[in-house]
Amino acid sequence: MNFSSDTAAPAHPAVLEAMMRANAGPAPSYGADKVTARVRGQLARVFETEDFDFWITPSGTAANALALSCFCPPIASVICHKEAHIQMDERGAVEFFTGGGRLHLLPGAGGKIDHAVYTEYLNEYDPSFVHGTPPAVVSLTNLTECGTAYTPAEVARFSGRGGLTVHMDGARFGNALVHTGASPAEMSWKAGVDVLTLGLTKTGALNCDIVILFGAAKAKGKELRARAKRAGHMPAKMRFLAAQAEAMLEGGLWLGLAAHANAMAQKLAAVFREDGIELAFDVQGNEVFALLDPYDIDKLQEDGAAFYAEWPGGSSRFVCSWATTEAEIESVREMLRRPMRK
Amino acid sequence: MNFSSDTAAPAHPAVLEAMMRANAGPAPSYGADKVTARVRGQLARVFETEDFDFWITPSGTAANALALSCFCPPIASVICHKEAHIQMDERGAVEFFTGGGRLHLLPGAGGKIDHAVYTEYLNEYDPSFVHGTPPAVVSLTNLTECGTAYTPAEVARFSGRGGLTVHMDGARFGNALVHTGASPAEMSWKAGVDVLTLGLTKTGALNCDIVILFGAAKAKGKELRARAKRAGHMPAKMRFLAAQAEAMLEGGLWLGLAAHANAMAQKLAAVFREDGIELAFDVQGNEVFALLDPYDIDKLQEDGAAFYAEWPGGSSRFVCSWATTEAEIESVREMLRRPMRK
Amino acid sequence: MNFSSDTAAPAHPAVLEAMMRANAGPAPSYGADKVTARVRGQLARVFETEDFDFWITPSGTAANALALSCFCPPIASVICHKEAHIQMDERGAVEFFTGGGRLHLLPGAGGKIDHAVYTEYLNEYDPSFVHGTPPAVVSLTNLTECGTAYTPAEVARFSGRGGLTVHMDGARFGNALVHTGASPAEMSWKAGVDVLTLGLTKTGALNCDIVILFGAAKAKGKELRARAKRAGHMPAKMRFLAAQAEAMLEGGLWLGLAAHANAMAQKLAAVFREDGIELAFDVQGNEVFALLDPYDIDKLQEDGAAFYAEWPGGSSRFVCSWATTEAEIESVREMLRRPMRK
Amino acid sequence: MNFSSDTAAPAHPAVLEAMMRANAGPAPSYGADKVTARVRGQLARVFETEDFDFWITPSGTAANALALSCFCPPIASVICHKEAHIQMDERGAVEFFTGGGRLHLLPGAGGKIDHAVYTEYLNEYDPSFVHGTPPAVVSLTNLTECGTAYTPAEVARFSGRGGLTVHMDGARFGNALVHTGASPAEMSWKAGVDVLTLGLTKTGALNCDIVILFGAAKAKGKELRARAKRAGHMPAKMRFLAAQAEAMLEGGLWLGLAAHANAMAQKLAAVFREDGIELAFDVQGNEVFALLDPYDIDKLQEDGAAFYAEWPGGSSRFVCSWATTEAEIESVREMLRRPMRK
Repeated sequence: MNFSSDTAAPAHPAVLEAMMRANAGPAPSYGADKVTARVRGQLARVFETEDFDFWITPSGTAANALALSCFCPPIASVICHKEAHIQMDERGAVEFFTGGGRLHLLPGAGGKIDHAVYTEYLNEYDPSFVHGTPPAVVSLTNLTECGTAYTPAEVARFSGRGGLTVHMDGARFGNALVHTGASPAEMSWKAGVDVLTLGLTKTGALNCDIVILFGAAKAKGKELRARAKRAGHMPAKMRFLAAQAEAMLEGGLWLGLAAHANAMAQKLAAVFREDGIELAFDVQGNEVFALLDPYDIDKLQEDGAAFYAEWPGGSSRFVCSWATTEAEIESVREMLRRPMRK
Repeated sequence: MNFSSDTAAPAHPAVLEAMMRANAGPAPSYGADKVTARVRGQLARVFETEDFDFWITPSGTAANALALSCFCPPIASVICHKEAHIQMDERGAVEFFTGGGRLHLLPGAGGKIDHAVYTEYLNEYDPSFVHGTPPAVVSLTNLTECGTAYTPAEVARFSGRGGLTVHMDGARFGNALVHTGASPAEMSWKAGVDVLTLGLTKTGALNCDIVILFGAAKAKGKELRARAKRAGHMPAKMRFLAAQAEAMLEGGLWLGLAAHANAMAQKLAAVFREDGIELAFDVQGNEVFALLDPYDIDKLQEDGAAFYAEWPGGSSRFVCSWATTEAEIESVREMLRRPMRK
Repeated sequence: MNFSSDTAAPAHPAVLEAMMRANAGPAPSYGADKVTARVRGQLARVFETEDFDFWITPSGTAANALALSCFCPPIASVICHKEAHIQMDERGAVEFFTGGGRLHLLPGAGGKIDHAVYTEYLNEYDPSFVHGTPPAVVSLTNLTECGTAYTPAEVARFSGRGGLTVHMDGARFGNALVHTGASPAEMSWKAGVDVLTLGLTKTGALNCDIVILFGAAKAKGKELRARAKRAGHMPAKMRFLAAQAEAMLEGGLWLGLAAHANAMAQKLAAVFREDGIELAFDVQGNEVFALLDPYDIDKLQEDGAAFYAEWPGGSSRFVCSWATTEAEIESVREMLRRPMRK
Repeated sequence: MNFSSDTAAPAHPAVLEAMMRANAGPAPSYGADKVTARVRGQLARVFETEDFDFWITPSGTAANALALSCFCPPIASVICHKEAHIQMDERGAVEFFTGGGRLHLLPGAGGKIDHAVYTEYLNEYDPSFVHGTPPAVVSLTNLTECGTAYTPAEVARFSGRGGLTVHMDGARFGNALVHTGASPAEMSWKAGVDVLTLGLTKTGALNCDIVILFGAAKAKGKELRARAKRAGHMPAKMRFLAAQAEAMLEGGLWLGLAAHANAMAQKLAAVFREDGIELAFDVQGNEVFALLDPYDIDKLQEDGAAFYAEWPGGSSRFVCSWATTEAEIESVREMLRRPMRK
């Protein structure tokens, strides 16, 4: 029973089957293959536009850092939430890929940047002050690190300000879509998102996170490829990344898997609430942050449930995935209700 | 019939099967899984030492740049052949990962650094000259970019000079081993190699290139992981990279595949020689550089043979892989002997 | 009447006279000259130790960034106050010089890092968490950006923790010494400072900020020179930087000038207090942060007093320098007491 | 008698006098002062255009690296001569400032890039090859490192090719102007130079090298300032750099000093030739490269003449400056003619 992360789950069988199918005969290297071409068509349909460019990478860190490095020059900064993944969990990848750019951290409840603070910062920032580090990009994480979801309307409020590029770290983009009911287009370019990290790894792929450049941002496509190559993110046998994307997007598999993970999280949340355990954040995706007492933590760990017991802020984090079963949720209920062993 | 690159070949079926097997149930992320642990044991046996550390990456560019960035500070340089892959084909990855280090290019016949020029450069270099960029690493490519192989004795001559770290770009390491008859240990740490890029992608994996730190270089293991994470090269589901390595190393599969590719290259070379076509370099691995006349190039291309017609230096490059068949070699013979179509 | 910054003041005449004297005949370039050699002797006497190395730079930004880049690798961070000069006013120089290192910002009253928060951060930080960015250096600014002074005892509390290098940004080091009564040695290496930016520009030089490496940090001397050269901070005619240092250190001129500036600040503070104007911070150096009402700001500006009317936090900043006169302080008093003109 | 470098000479007295004059009373920091404003007017007159922007730096390395970093992104390269100062003597400053860009070295006689090789390289370069590092800038050094001068017509041949920005490293720009008789405008923007490093330090300033952006390149002015600040090259008391520029440009002082240095070099060359000593390169500026035999080198060194005895390529380098006297040249003649002492 593993709630430690959706990355602890295996890949969905359809993903590996697609990779097997892609493994037939020779194919051009570095993205010139037919599978990659088909993914372009899929993305056009999923996002309801032809006005985009993209690149597939093998990790969310790679996708975020590559995306941001195309829009944040070394003399500028990326605004993000103070607990954003790019700040807490990517070992300074943005600073590395941008050549010494900086993250500017803003606070906000539930993992969302406080829009009033954001506005105030932009209003007070003096772009002519050569000694400061001006913002070039704002990066929103959706699903947030607290498992909450920005709505398209909330996202849209961050766009069109001071010429900033809007990036969305969508490592759990599907989960946010399922919760809000928004379409991929509504949650991205229609809400002012210029560049999206479309994460499929946590949703069920093996390792597949796509950078998508919408509209005018498309002009950075060539630079994106150059930066990917330079970072070792242009694998020779590109078709195997593309095959994963194809399998996940085909027939909306990714959204189905995200919906399952979200539903499991709701059930898990219900289990906690039934036992009088409070949640730190509203469950709007596949993550549950429970305020467990030490006895409950002990009981769950004794029985082999894997989860982050001490998440920053004081709660325990449980992540559901496409592979989480109702039986596992039931087991949590039973664990919580049984007496301590010693 | 694809001789364009060994990266155009599919992955060996055993590799994908291993990935399928690895895809059972949850597993710890980021290299803490059991498959990665087993690969450590395999590497110890293959290289006849426990005195090493390693990290698995999804591309040769990533492996080379990560390896070199641990040993070349930004104020120093990496000596390499003027046609080395890190110079010609990796979009400045070394400069990027080292934070502005430099490649210092040396000439040499057949893709090998001229040892006399190397010695002269080291002798003349004044390490106290603060204005210059001192060498910190020498990087040898084996198999070279000309398809020739350094012997262990040749490699050993480059070690122990001026405190330089010795790196080997072994994108086609197996091919060099097969040709020279050297063991992995003889060609690496026993010959003074401190850090090896053990390429398995071109040999038959899907995307799997391993950085191995031998002996004292092992001290950089923690830094290597930090740099990998920072570069987006610490995939969450690490087990799938490890599964590839395991499949390739198991029972010496990698060496068997390399031997096949080398044998095919010898047959192809024989086909060319029989037709009076000269070769630009001795065939010591899986690459054949043929000095074709324009008519022969046209004939081969008309019939759909894929290869690099205009390789730098004036020859045409043909690369054999684990998937190359004798029938394909025979086809080349027939193509060359038939009259032009128009 | 210019209270905008101590950098708005001219250089002390003795500094330019020393430069004139240094301008006699040829001299070796790049720091091999006699004046630079003499500065070494002066620094040894001033800091009561021979166990140091140093380099002279033409700006505080250069000195800080060079100093920090020798101790913070690109995969790590520098802890500093959230309003430190390296964060607010140096355009990402630390990120640039470290190759993508990061500043980790901590709060604290009066410009001093809150030691309890610092301790908690170090205690909670998990150095084995490869996804995070571990601290490598703590940087203390003394005089702080709020014009307050750390005592040697306060500084010492930051040393010896978790292997962190202790850097002091001493752009106004002399002012802090004068206020606390500490000797240069007591405020630096005796209090655990490994590397000091000894600022003389704001004190009265033309452009002269010295990086001093104490004790074991001395091992970075060669790297410091290499990084200085690489950053364009190894001027050919180095003797002119050295001449400034020599003039400032000679006979304790720098401390005398700092004492004057501090005394002027005390007088200015008294002027404000007499008029019932509160100060945002205790005046412990040459800076006064006054909580002026808009009328007072207008009156001062109408009469041509230069100062930062809107300093972050809501006060107005007045900086005294070696060139500030009692008459100028008196003028401020008169301006405040006269009626508004319109 | 110091022929080691023109940087070994003192600054011209007029330069220090100007600095003294600039040292009167307070002045705005960071380039907002009146002296800097006056320099703008001078540059407009000297270069016969208002269509430019500029920044003053304290070293040639700083000026070159800042200039190049505005035009060469990290994914591209700067074409330069294989013995260019940016390659041989600036410790990787270009790689540092560009964030990992690369120098692409081309050969050529007498320090000038061979134009045919340049053309061939540009013709053969495939800009769509994402694995390679495309050229973004060509950097010409004038006076070259061999003491020869490009004419405006020679410079013009390098412009307008493949969208490359043309940079001129004019550390000895005045010397090249004097030799060729070209005006500053003819040698720079009229010949297609987009960005010029106008070196005044070697000509007679204390430390003053100006980056000038001509025409469309002017759009990079803001970025240039940001990069300068970030690199510690925006000294607070900017007026002292500006004062040097003003003194040097006033009344053509810089050209007069360059003319003197060139004339001394011609006399020195004549001394060598009279003694049957061959020169490695035509003397077209203030540098003489003499093919001395070991006895002559010994004699000169015995008598205290400072020069680079072993310049790369086998000659000895003698540099004349504004301060070189006819008597010094005569002394060389006498030294060469006297018998060996032992």
